[in-house]
Amino acid sequence: MNPRNGAQSLLDALATGGVDVCFANPGTSEMHFVAALDGAPGLRGVLALFEGVATGAADGYARIAGRPAAVLLHLGPGLGNGLANLHNARRAHVPMVLVVGDHAGYHKRYDAPLESDIDAVAHTVSGWVRRSATADEVADDAALAVSVSRAGQIATLILPADASWNAVRAADTDAGVPAAVLAGRAEPAATAAAMDTAAYWLRSSNPQTALLIGGDATDADGLAAAARIAEATGARLLCETFPTRLRRGAGVPPVERLGYFAEAAVAQLTGVTRLILAGARAPVSFFAYPGMASDLVPPGAEVLTLAGHRGAAAALAALADELAPGTTASPAPADRPTPPTGPLNALSLAAAVGATLPENAIVVDESMTAGMGLPAATAGAPAHDVLSITGGAIGYGLPAAIGAAIAAPDRPVLALQADGSAMYTISALWTHARENLDITTVILNNGAYDILRVELQRVGAENAAAPGPRAAELLDLGRPDLDFVQIAQGMGVPARRVGNAEDLAVALAESFAEPGPHLIEAMLPSIFSVAG
Amino acid sequence: MNPRNGAQSLLDALATGGVDVCFANPGTSEMHFVAALDGAPGLRGVLALFEGVATGAADGYARIAGRPAAVLLHLGPGLGNGLANLHNARRAHVPMVLVVGDHAGYHKRYDAPLESDIDAVAHTVSGWVRRSATADEVADDAALAVSVSRAGQIATLILPADASWNAVRAADTDAGVPAAVLAGRAEPAATAAAMDTAAYWLRSSNPQTALLIGGDATDADGLAAAARIAEATGARLLCETFPTRLRRGAGVPPVERLGYFAEAAVAQLTGVTRLILAGARAPVSFFAYPGMASDLVPPGAEVLTLAGHRGAAAALAALADELAPGTTASPAPADRPTPPTGPLNALSLAAAVGATLPENAIVVDESMTAGMGLPAATAGAPAHDVLSITGGAIGYGLPAAIGAAIAAPDRPVLALQADGSAMYTISALWTHARENLDITTVILNNGAYDILRVELQRVGAENAAAPGPRAAELLDLGRPDLDFVQIAQGMGVPARRVGNAEDLAVALAESFAEPGPHLIEAMLPSIFSVAG
Repeated sequence: MNPRNGAQSLLDALATGGVDVCFANPGTSEMHFVAALDGAPGLRGVLALFEGVATGAADGYARIAGRPAAVLLHLGPGLGNGLANLHNARRAHVPMVLVVGDHAGYHKRYDAPLESDIDAVAHTVSGWVRRSATADEVADDAALAVSVSRAGQIATLILPADASWNAVRAADTDAGVPAAVLAGRAEPAATAAAMDTAAYWLRSSNPQTALLIGGDATDADGLAAAARIAEATGARLLCETFPTRLRRGAGVPPVERLGYFAEAAVAQLTGVTRLILAGARAPVSFFAYPGMASDLVPPGAEVLTLAGHRGAAAALAALADELAPGTTASPAPADRPTPPTGPLNALSLAAAVGATLPENAIVVDESMTAGMGLPAATAGAPAHDVLSITGGAIGYGLPAAIGAAIAAPDRPVLALQADGSAMYTISALWTHARENLDITTVILNNGAYDILRVELQRVGAENAAAPGPRAAELLDLGRPDLDFVQIAQGMGVPARRVGNAEDLAVALAESFAEPGPHLIEAMLPSIFSVAG
Repeated sequence: MNPRNGAQSLLDALATGGVDVCFANPGTSEMHFVAALDGAPGLRGVLALFEGVATGAADGYARIAGRPAAVLLHLGPGLGNGLANLHNARRAHVPMVLVVGDHAGYHKRYDAPLESDIDAVAHTVSGWVRRSATADEVADDAALAVSVSRAGQIATLILPADASWNAVRAADTDAGVPAAVLAGRAEPAATAAAMDTAAYWLRSSNPQTALLIGGDATDADGLAAAARIAEATGARLLCETFPTRLRRGAGVPPVERLGYFAEAAVAQLTGVTRLILAGARAPVSFFAYPGMASDLVPPGAEVLTLAGHRGAAAALAALADELAPGTTASPAPADRPTPPTGPLNALSLAAAVGATLPENAIVVDESMTAGMGLPAATAGAPAHDVLSITGGAIGYGLPAAIGAAIAAPDRPVLALQADGSAMYTISALWTHARENLDITTVILNNGAYDILRVELQRVGAENAAAPGPRAAELLDLGRPDLDFVQIAQGMGVPARRVGNAEDLAVALAESFAEPGPHLIEAMLPSIFSVAG
């Protein structure tokens, strides 16, 4: 048998580590990785036409599969193109193995046109960065990358082309990494002191104690434990604004999300004197606004961090057994809206989703202003998972839907996608079609960056209530209007436009009934065109 | 009069510095900048739907206008999305003022969801980075940014939201920057020693001396000087592979470009014993390949750097006056191909371009493999400028065309755009339509990453000549086929598809005759589907 090269040993190590998908947008320096795919049947290569699609897909995959996917990018510009969704993944504590191809080691000193500082950029989003110097190091480095990524971080392996194409000398390619390291470490449990304090606060039965959950506590088990605690003690229960993965719907204990706008979050937290964080961080305003506080913890309130992103569900379960033994949480009742009729707006759109959402769907929510009616309208829909734009970098939804659909091929995926944000990574639709993924995309087309029209007012900019024509032009997506039906069809996704609520409900039902990708362009009014 | 805020003082400073366009993709932290546009009539705001469009547009603008445009991006993810075309701009020595909005200074310690290390990423592409701490600093910082960008580099101003919205206390906003700094510095002239050595080498009348030009030497004056030298001395004349801006066509002294593939470049340089660099760097292979040299300077050859990116034309002019006094360079004769007929392929496509190219066009060339016939077919077309993908980061062409068209509204722009590369920044088409730019885009649709199919063989990957199906799938853009006519129409650009050479020639002529944007999808065979 011929000696294996670095790329082949990399794919072996990924497979050994349980990585079974690689979202890829390769270039010349990655050709040996690509060539090696045919010898690695356990690793599925999925082509993205833009790197931000690949990184967003890997994020969506990890959130649903609970394990890392690999991503293959080309040099510094490829990493740059993938950076926005890597930012979201970092903020969501998502496991991911990022392989960035680089020039051959000996080639770097020539400062060829594509040379750039990959390491510096990679460090801004990665919990772990390593550069394999030789082919012999690749397998161990890859094994370590998979292992450390499991702690909920991006592990970046920079792979020089010669480390990829050279033959590996060592026979046992992962002998260097101890088994204990490869298995990954358990998250530290909540400390006894934190558990005691939380129990003491909660036993005070004080409605001014609030439990803010996030991380792994927004899955079914964590929600159940948190709800048992809240129900038994009267504590207020909230979850972070953009959870990594939120289980909700009929049969799942409900949780209110902290508002995106600081004013809303302040109102939700008013009167709280003790705040327990389980998987969430202390609440802060998404942006700063003149004259408003950044820190949303009510003045004078005590804050306790019970558990980090991982381990929150376990800490809450232990706390629930202590504070509310033998209880079960009250689940949300099944309760769908009736299919709506009449004009499309944020409320009728939400009702159409609530009326049609199939069992065990995955909802990727990048709906921005147009999605304001969704939480209420889907609260009693069949149980589903919601993935949200955790780091706030737009262009997440269409790529994340790819990963979610690949991680769970038997579950329907609904991508609720604002129009402006859709355009950042629109080529994701092509991958929806190529992989024949069961994704229903609803483009919420209101012809504007409505969220920025809101923000223009909120930041108190001069003439914000009536911006001048040149400012307004930068927030307007008209002239020309985007036609997402044509764009989607141009990438191979069947598409239709709907202009009223009943047509949207029918289109959703038909799309959910038929496997494969579909796009529905929902024509919505700008919130600024609706009289109060 | 109310005190001006930081954003307003920034726009004032840009206008004072001669910056008249800002390519923008703003977010919440940039709303005061946006609001200030209506009070800054000298600065045109141009909306891009993706940051890579904005940065590529600013690059194209600078290459044609010869001065910097501003770019407005939103936080770290916005900078990431703009990074690939910033890489191209850095490699092209393009002046650019990059404004990256950041959170308010006091907000940063809360590590809000969109917080990331903007500075680290900005340093990888910028020659100069500054963060304005207060509103009072913004005007001076912006004035300096404009000034230092003129040296041919990206000057990045990180603008915290509070520095933008707070009132400026100082009355004279640019008093802090000395006038000499604001005027910019002249590029150092070539040293006497370098001039003497070059003259000595060239006087030897040795055909083994070669002149490799780039930078400002590929404009008309530099080309004329270089050609005079070559004609008088017998030196070989070449220009760099991807010049920032290359003048060519009828009436312009022709220059051969160094080949992209190292084998071609090696052949062009064979026998050269003395290499003079004027605005170009010593030739290196674009990528490393197993068993091939990275350094393309022939073994044993002497290399002299006469001048850098700027100042090369002046050095060549002085040298020409010394070595070839009173001569004029031989221009390329006017010589167009006849309009082609028959099937479309790289040669007939090139002939259609050569037959129809209007006077003084700007050609943005990201044609990759499909453009191989262009240099010969357009050598005698009316004089035109070619912008090329200097840093090798794809997704450059459609954005750069925006900037070129805005810099020269009276000149037709032809974007020759490979299909795979087009998808990275496809939303640029929307800006073509919104600004009603006179851009003819030809999508070279061969349904594949053909360049990677070539590279797969060149890197010697296993089974490269007959890649396995899973490797082949990552290089194939079919299944589904992209329909660029629908995609373009969906973004408001009139489009048509052509399947033979005569239809392409007609479509080009009609598009050139009608102002505004047009897209022509030229259906080409993959080079791997054509029998040798």
